[in-house]
Amino acid sequence: MKAKELMDKSFVYLNCDDSVVDASKAMEEVRRFTCPVVNENKQLVGWITSFDITKGLRDGNDKISEVMSSAEEVSTVHENDPARKAVILTANNKFVTVPVVNDDNQVIGMVRACDIVELLSELYDIKVVKLYKAMQNQLKGVTWEELMAASALVSKKTTGKKISPEEYEANIMNSTFGEAIWATGGLEKFFAGLISVGELVIARRVGKAKR
Amino acid sequence: MKAKELMDKSFVYLNCDDSVVDASKAMEEVRRFTCPVVNENKQLVGWITSFDITKGLRDGNDKISEVMSSAEEVSTVHENDPARKAVILTANNKFVTVPVVNDDNQVIGMVRACDIVELLSELYDIKVVKLYKAMQNQLKGVTWEELMAASALVSKKTTGKKISPEEYEANIMNSTFGEAIWATGGLEKFFAGLISVGELVIARRVGKAKR
Repeated sequence: MKAKELMDKSFVYLNCDDSVVDASKAMEEVRRFTCPVVNENKQLVGWITSFDITKGLRDGNDKISEVMSSAEEVSTVHENDPARKAVILTANNKFVTVPVVNDDNQVIGMVRACDIVELLSELYDIKVVKLYKAMQNQLKGVTWEELMAASALVSKKTTGKKISPEEYEANIMNSTFGEAIWATGGLEKFFAGLISVGELVIARRVGKAKR
Repeated sequence: MKAKELMDKSFVYLNCDDSVVDASKAMEEVRRFTCPVVNENKQLVGWITSFDITKGLRDGNDKISEVMSSAEEVSTVHENDPARKAVILTANNKFVTVPVVNDDNQVIGMVRACDIVELLSELYDIKVVKLYKAMQNQLKGVTWEELMAASALVSKKTTGKKISPEEYEANIMNSTFGEAIWATGGLEKFFAGLISVGELVIARRVGKAKR
């Protein structure tokens, strides 16, 4: 996924000569706390946040150029950069928005923290049961009951707490991937648990075949 | 994980009687675009964004109570709600911040979109090789070379493209979980692929044991 596939296009451009008052109205209208300031070629020349605007309104500044940060202080991503770059920039710097530029340094979009949350939360919010269904599908011939029985056994071994296959099934029906990762102590542990279940059902199947 | 474990505590409270000018300075200082308005018991009575402040400064409003939204318009989470609730609220409504309240409806923190990005990106940015190492660790007795050989085989079967175990290893060394999910077409497919690798190494091990 590229940065351009994640960016929001409904932002406003400001120009150096725009008045602080007009800029404040434009930002309220589109409800954006940050805005790129561009030249006549839509190239990034500065950056405005609502903090610059409130200070400018208080101090009676007239033009955007008087209150903006310079373009050099702004972190950008290129439209063809991996979306991951915008995510890491946002996470490490607590950014609200990262502007996206093209080869000509024109601002063509903005990656917003809330867009990233939406994207990542789709992953995080997938039901665990779907992963078990994928596993069953993969391990041809294994029944759902065998999978739940193996899972309950592995769970008992890992947590020390007895759980029936039915209880285990009820748990995974309601829990999401994000919750499961936190409950098991991380992605690697969650995954190791799944592998361990897979290993057990395969061992049981081999055992049956021998009999 | 609970909402209170995800919340940021370095925010400012505003009161109804605070002046718009003072509020604007306080928000600039802590660099927060949103603020809860509370009563003397720190209970939520309203909500302020930088848009309310810029409009208030322009219109010459004096007090915060003149420009704030009412508490009824604000979505909150309880401190003991699952963190997931704040994530979903943020994703669905493109919120910048969700206030966290306790049993007495006192605001005790704010979950910010950028905090959620940081949390989720840690998951998303984990190296795929770590999952393979966890798998090897789980499947006791399987060597790294066996695992890579099986992975290259499964990859060839899935993609139709021949790949050597060494090339496969180089790929997973550099790629992250997030990238792998997009590359394989989703979390379920990614897991199905890993399960399939596990299945193959187990089958090979069983085969060797029989000989």
